[in-house]
Amino acid sequence: MKSGHIRLHLVHEMPKSKQVQLGQRKMDEKLKQYRESINNIDAALVFMLAERFKVTQAVGEYKAKNSLPPADGAREKEQIARLRQLAIDANLDPEFSEKFLRFIIDEVIRHHERIRSEA
Amino acid sequence: MKSGHIRLHLVHEMPKSKQVQLGQRKMDEKLKQYRESINNIDAALVFMLAERFKVTQAVGEYKAKNSLPPADGAREKEQIARLRQLAIDANLDPEFSEKFLRFIIDEVIRHHERIRSEA
Repeated sequence: MKSGHIRLHLVHEMPKSKQVQLGQRKMDEKLKQYRESINNIDAALVFMLAERFKVTQAVGEYKAKNSLPPADGAREKEQIARLRQLAIDANLDPEFSEKFLRFIIDEVIRHHERIRSEA
Repeated sequence: MKSGHIRLHLVHEMPKSKQVQLGQRKMDEKLKQYRESINNIDAALVFMLAERFKVTQAVGEYKAKNSLPPADGAREKEQIARLRQLAIDANLDPEFSEKFLRFIIDEVIRHHERIRSEA
């Protein structure tokens, strides 16, 4: 933390307006770095979701062709339990992981119903 | 498609109960394979989400420390536009990508508000 102390010392010798400017710039830079990470992760999430919907699209077509029902309660329960455990392992709120899966499954069921109605 | 025809021929020579059994087993195997892919993708999604919340947690603490507001309308608009474009590239419904981002951001804002109230 030594360099931090030196920096603080130099900042205090600057005129007030310069300090504010420097503080603002450092703040912008810090937020920018965080946002770049979020952007990268969001891109990964979008592409993973696209891949997930590709698979569930195939499942939907397969279910429609074989007259299987679009929703499967037992499978959903199993998925929720599995995701809750993964969330705990990843230090993520298990309630949120369940809400998240519900959100995705609702979209999947909408897709499946559309496939059935178009079949 | 030749091997498919041969298989179909053999199936038709089997007694009906055997055909149903084989059909059921093939169907189960196919669904099982799809579900394994979905499970893998879900694990990836959960871990990506955990990483995203780690970053937004840091952003939240940073914003609280520097008295910045938890929500940033301009940044959100920029994220929505970016994600819609990524969704189009990934052949994913852009409406869904927007709903998805909204869902995540709402959770992030809840986290940030909690951080502020605890600060």
